[in-house]
Amino acid sequence: MPVLLSAPLAADLLPVPGVRLGVSEAGIRKLHRKDLTLIELAEGARVAGVFTLNRFCAAPVQVCRAHLQAGDIRALVINTGVANAGTGEPGLVAARATCAAVAAHLGLQASQVLPFSTGVILEPLPVEKLIAGLPAAQEALAENRWHDAAHAIMTTDTVAKVASRQVQIGGRTVTLTGMSKGAGMIRPNMATMLGFLATDAAVAQPLLEMLVREAADLSFNSITVDGDTSTNDSFILIATGQAGNPEIGDAASADYAALRNAVVELSTWLAQAIVRDGEGATKFITLQIEGGLDKEECRKVGYAIGHSPLVKTAFFASDPNLGRILAAIGYAGIADLDVSRLRVWLARAGEEVLVAEKGGRAASYQEEAGARVMAASEITIRVDLARGSAAATLWSCDFSYEYVKINADYRS
Amino acid sequence: MPVLLSAPLAADLLPVPGVRLGVSEAGIRKLHRKDLTLIELAEGARVAGVFTLNRFCAAPVQVCRAHLQAGDIRALVINTGVANAGTGEPGLVAARATCAAVAAHLGLQASQVLPFSTGVILEPLPVEKLIAGLPAAQEALAENRWHDAAHAIMTTDTVAKVASRQVQIGGRTVTLTGMSKGAGMIRPNMATMLGFLATDAAVAQPLLEMLVREAADLSFNSITVDGDTSTNDSFILIATGQAGNPEIGDAASADYAALRNAVVELSTWLAQAIVRDGEGATKFITLQIEGGLDKEECRKVGYAIGHSPLVKTAFFASDPNLGRILAAIGYAGIADLDVSRLRVWLARAGEEVLVAEKGGRAASYQEEAGARVMAASEITIRVDLARGSAAATLWSCDFSYEYVKINADYRS
Repeated sequence: MPVLLSAPLAADLLPVPGVRLGVSEAGIRKLHRKDLTLIELAEGARVAGVFTLNRFCAAPVQVCRAHLQAGDIRALVINTGVANAGTGEPGLVAARATCAAVAAHLGLQASQVLPFSTGVILEPLPVEKLIAGLPAAQEALAENRWHDAAHAIMTTDTVAKVASRQVQIGGRTVTLTGMSKGAGMIRPNMATMLGFLATDAAVAQPLLEMLVREAADLSFNSITVDGDTSTNDSFILIATGQAGNPEIGDAASADYAALRNAVVELSTWLAQAIVRDGEGATKFITLQIEGGLDKEECRKVGYAIGHSPLVKTAFFASDPNLGRILAAIGYAGIADLDVSRLRVWLARAGEEVLVAEKGGRAASYQEEAGARVMAASEITIRVDLARGSAAATLWSCDFSYEYVKINADYRS
Repeated sequence: MPVLLSAPLAADLLPVPGVRLGVSEAGIRKLHRKDLTLIELAEGARVAGVFTLNRFCAAPVQVCRAHLQAGDIRALVINTGVANAGTGEPGLVAARATCAAVAAHLGLQASQVLPFSTGVILEPLPVEKLIAGLPAAQEALAENRWHDAAHAIMTTDTVAKVASRQVQIGGRTVTLTGMSKGAGMIRPNMATMLGFLATDAAVAQPLLEMLVREAADLSFNSITVDGDTSTNDSFILIATGQAGNPEIGDAASADYAALRNAVVELSTWLAQAIVRDGEGATKFITLQIEGGLDKEECRKVGYAIGHSPLVKTAFFASDPNLGRILAAIGYAGIADLDVSRLRVWLARAGEEVLVAEKGGRAASYQEEAGARVMAASEITIRVDLARGSAAATLWSCDFSYEYVKINADYRS
């Protein structure tokens, strides 16, 4: 059961002018399941993306990087079932064949198509099945199909992750709709396993590229479920320019700030949705690390807590096992950390409890207060490192029997 | 159930002349359980140790470091139940009071006593109970009590970890007996949560200090259960000098080599015993990483595989999920790793299977062969990074329902 996250209704989603979506059943790995998504962009749309830093990056990621370099992207094609990662040269051939087939259907060049795959690693992509599924997806293309698409890109996800926002820019209403997928192998490094965010705002390409990086860092690059960086992480930002606002070309403008805030907010929602639907998750944990010398050391401490199986199982048990949190802070890799100065709080909505200071348990700490916080579905661990003024916020979840079950069973 | 590890009989263990051990029930956390161990060393014994790098290092670790500096150690005192970590200044006071009480009983200075604690972090050490338990432990002191001591230092361990060896040095038979404890919060950084190895060899102090570091690096510092570095890790090497061999003072001598090999072999056995008894472990995994530019990058790759919850749950399921192993190698942090050159094998006794090469699954790979290897209790993952000639070997275990259960229940 995801943590305080439910599937949206199709009626809650706003179409983005210039973006049409269609899905179909290609039977890539299993029959009778929507596993192929086609997205067509209107002429003039701008696209920017960030991708995994995993050295075993998937074939489609390599093709995406090359095609984005060339520019003028007009279509995206996404399959589930098989990740087309760890597939060597044949994998690249399959990804390129996919682009060529999409291009043929839509009257484009293959280099105008971005391919995405998610699913099992090391299996060959059955590219002929994928290509055979394209006509049905093309036939379904429509602007109001975000709901279908968000479902068709799911793998071990239990809930579709998709949402819309609107914001006023340059006297026009600008729409943003985005979707993401992922529940395991989540510790994005650049971006997460498939996030797509489209807007009809008009924005210059360099700003779009700056924005996709910033939004990824503040959202998808700040979550972890199990510490495993995927081979296929991709986050794509699309701007169709059809809202009619004057093109945003100045990073210091109020228009850019409005767009930036809306993109970051929606990206963060999509990234948090992945954590809320983390494999086996029963708790949503915010890690708020302050007082660091720099952002990087704050993130180190946050990830040490967020990845510790001992901390994660204690959260699953609603057990305020503070010693495990302190141990994780202690081994996070800050060699000159003065543990006598740092402070740690546990918090839930409306209640914050100081749990550790002066190298040990806070004198004021009552186990009942800790237990009360730990019983909540959403919990914040706040750490003040007392070394400087840098801060970072990460999101993570707990570790349950269900995680082991899901991952011991996944391939069978 | 530990993986191919059973408790030794008391009759299998050899006393080390100059080392007497005694245990008692101090009721530190639970009643009616041996939780206090006293070790007395004869005059002239030499002691060297390495300790956790966790910044939240426990009070007894801080006291050990100071007392070892002063030298002439004559006693060790070990309690379970409470780790005396994250206990601030009162924790230090309790550890020093423990040493003073032991010294009073044995006619020593407090600085000649090393204190060790293991158990729950952040709880105050009930030092008065510990001190009240000392007379019974002192009364029990005998050279043939290693079996008792190895049981008395256990916490979530299911099997006592203790063994003996003999080796010929300088025309004399030298005895080594060692014990360790630990099953969770295991990713030692310097040494593990309580390992003690004693020998009657005569060896110079500088060599003993060199040896304890080398043995720790090759054994306790090369294992992981859950990636959590404990606050109390300690590994102590004792040489009583009573074997009658000419004192070893030359690191290039054959005598030193013989002692070094015996110490490293026994340390490795004790470290591996911790992994075999890892919380919930059903498989013992050897990670053999070769062809690195340096040892450090080999260890990075090994730990990435050894810590990945996805790899560990696949091992639990006996599922040859190669993609998860490749993904872990890919995110291990070697920025210029050429995945098209590396090769990966899965092996069990008598069978080694090439599973990946040229950036993907090996052409010769058969799923049946992978499944056959994964069904074994002891499995080796061998990775050739094809970058240089450095190598490292680490040991890890799988991740089961039982791990979650043990750690979700531990404090209750």
